[in-house]
Amino acid sequence: MNTERLQRILQKLKEKDLSQMIISDPMAIYYLTGRLIDPGERLLALYISQSGNNRIFINNLFTVPEDLGVEKVRFSDTDDSIALLAEALTPGEALGIDKIFPARFLLPLMERASASSYVLSSVCVDEVRACKDEEEKEKMRASSRVNDAAMARFREMVHEGVTEKDVAAHMLEIYQELGAEAYSFPPLVGFGPNAANGHHEPDDTVLKDGDCVLIDVGCKREGYCSDMTRTFFFRKVRDPKHKEIYEIVRKAVETAESMLKPGVPLCDVDAAARKVIEDAGYGPNFTHRLGHFIGLEDHEYGDVSLANHNVAQVGNVFSIEPGIYIEGEVGVRIEDLVMITEDGCEILNSYPKELSIIE
Amino acid sequence: MNTERLQRILQKLKEKDLSQMIISDPMAIYYLTGRLIDPGERLLALYISQSGNNRIFINNLFTVPEDLGVEKVRFSDTDDSIALLAEALTPGEALGIDKIFPARFLLPLMERASASSYVLSSVCVDEVRACKDEEEKEKMRASSRVNDAAMARFREMVHEGVTEKDVAAHMLEIYQELGAEAYSFPPLVGFGPNAANGHHEPDDTVLKDGDCVLIDVGCKREGYCSDMTRTFFFRKVRDPKHKEIYEIVRKAVETAESMLKPGVPLCDVDAAARKVIEDAGYGPNFTHRLGHFIGLEDHEYGDVSLANHNVAQVGNVFSIEPGIYIEGEVGVRIEDLVMITEDGCEILNSYPKELSIIE
Repeated sequence: MNTERLQRILQKLKEKDLSQMIISDPMAIYYLTGRLIDPGERLLALYISQSGNNRIFINNLFTVPEDLGVEKVRFSDTDDSIALLAEALTPGEALGIDKIFPARFLLPLMERASASSYVLSSVCVDEVRACKDEEEKEKMRASSRVNDAAMARFREMVHEGVTEKDVAAHMLEIYQELGAEAYSFPPLVGFGPNAANGHHEPDDTVLKDGDCVLIDVGCKREGYCSDMTRTFFFRKVRDPKHKEIYEIVRKAVETAESMLKPGVPLCDVDAAARKVIEDAGYGPNFTHRLGHFIGLEDHEYGDVSLANHNVAQVGNVFSIEPGIYIEGEVGVRIEDLVMITEDGCEILNSYPKELSIIE
Repeated sequence: MNTERLQRILQKLKEKDLSQMIISDPMAIYYLTGRLIDPGERLLALYISQSGNNRIFINNLFTVPEDLGVEKVRFSDTDDSIALLAEALTPGEALGIDKIFPARFLLPLMERASASSYVLSSVCVDEVRACKDEEEKEKMRASSRVNDAAMARFREMVHEGVTEKDVAAHMLEIYQELGAEAYSFPPLVGFGPNAANGHHEPDDTVLKDGDCVLIDVGCKREGYCSDMTRTFFFRKVRDPKHKEIYEIVRKAVETAESMLKPGVPLCDVDAAARKVIEDAGYGPNFTHRLGHFIGLEDHEYGDVSLANHNVAQVGNVFSIEPGIYIEGEVGVRIEDLVMITEDGCEILNSYPKELSIIE
């Protein structure tokens, strides 16, 4: 068990007057124990409490190291695992529950009425995970370094006659050659009008001169995710408007990045990037939030949107990814990951953002 | 909306004195509406009631056909979707909840106290899904036909010098050539001692003369899953004991299949197969239940185990998959899918089960 991370979570719980919590999110359990278990439909729960009688509940089907740094409660499919969990609770006190805890466990637990109330408290874990510690910062940097190197390789795969699928086909192999273990999400490759569709998957569309080439990709390295988008043009820019759009998006991403430091409200960052695009007359074509938090998962708690009035904090890592999408014509998105530092931010991607034409 | 399936579910709810239920499992919603939506962390809920005021709650982010056969309630991320859901309920009556409904929605819904109680009732949906209708039976047969054809192709890929990864590498392509769209689960390929490890993933182990070759594979065709295991031997059987083990496992699978018909308790089927293995002295080496139900998902509600006292019903489709595993030495598993008919069962896999030596 990572004691420092646990202490930070217990502190957050204390601020909400919670003495105990059940954590069931496998990734949160991995964050604390270093062990990733996918329990499927079975119970996996880490009980933590201010009094220190922490327990992890793991089905016998899953092998775990002898020493997880927390007392293990093992059980079989034929045992009443909810009864075991209920016994561990401090009765008469409120119990924090994480947001993904399913009804199959929550309703039977509530029937036993061992806690005084049940309170959604994932946020106590999520806010801690949103502030990366030194070990995590190093891993986030390393993952994005691989992504930078990979983007250079992906660009080389764009040439006359290729389809989006051709470009996507060897990405995993390239990531693995570069030291990553997996995608952080399935890669997006969009040529021309396909780049305007946020849900477009690489298909058999053949590249044409003048097409934009949107590549939105990321890998996992030592468990940590990267995520970057670059938009190239093939041989020429078909329409001067596309160049103009590109430069607006670039200005938007740079504007957002230049204002990042601890204490800046995240909604202000979204607003500033959005203003660049709105002032240029493309407001309605920027159809999503500016960014999302990232770490062990490609989308983590927290975003950069008009609705998020929280301020940037040291160790936050999130994407800055404005875009302008003209249906049936062109889509441009530029995305970096950034990490908030004591006095500003570190941009985790060094791949150039200048307009680049692939010959 | 598939009215016949809906009526069967409502009937099950009625038997439990439930007038209303929230279904949130995307696959159950697909089963009823024909539309698969992965809502991620967002709310997706199908509300059904005996009074017929059914509603589906879908975030605006997801595109859906105009006519889903049920009234749609659309909302945005900034709307209070739980309030909308609460409004649709008949107040003062018990509300069925499915097992995967997460705390993030269930706790806020309960705070609004619109229902008199909250009752786990997935089983009402799951029991209906466990009895395939005619359309589903056809699709289950077709998926297993592809799996039979694929197994023949996979066998051809086993030759001197190959690794498990080599054999697994082209499986998806072969399935797709044969008309499937995807794996139903990642393929298992185990050579020699690796076949004794249930969680072994294909690795760089090179095939040796005398190795057993365990192949546990399945595909999805028109959304429906197949799942079959065959165990071959390469060039020879290393040890007469391995041949003996093979024949015991084959007898176990055939014993189970021969007794299947409506009304047979599923625990008796497990017990009969298990007895064959126990009588031969390998009881401790058969370490799992005999089978699992299958359909739109590779593991569905219901299993063939000593703990399941339910009886087989017409339209049930499940696996029969006994195995004997000798750690560090050999593993043999033989698995068919079977479908319960009016007077017996239809074995969905026709791939031979006789001991087969690959030259």
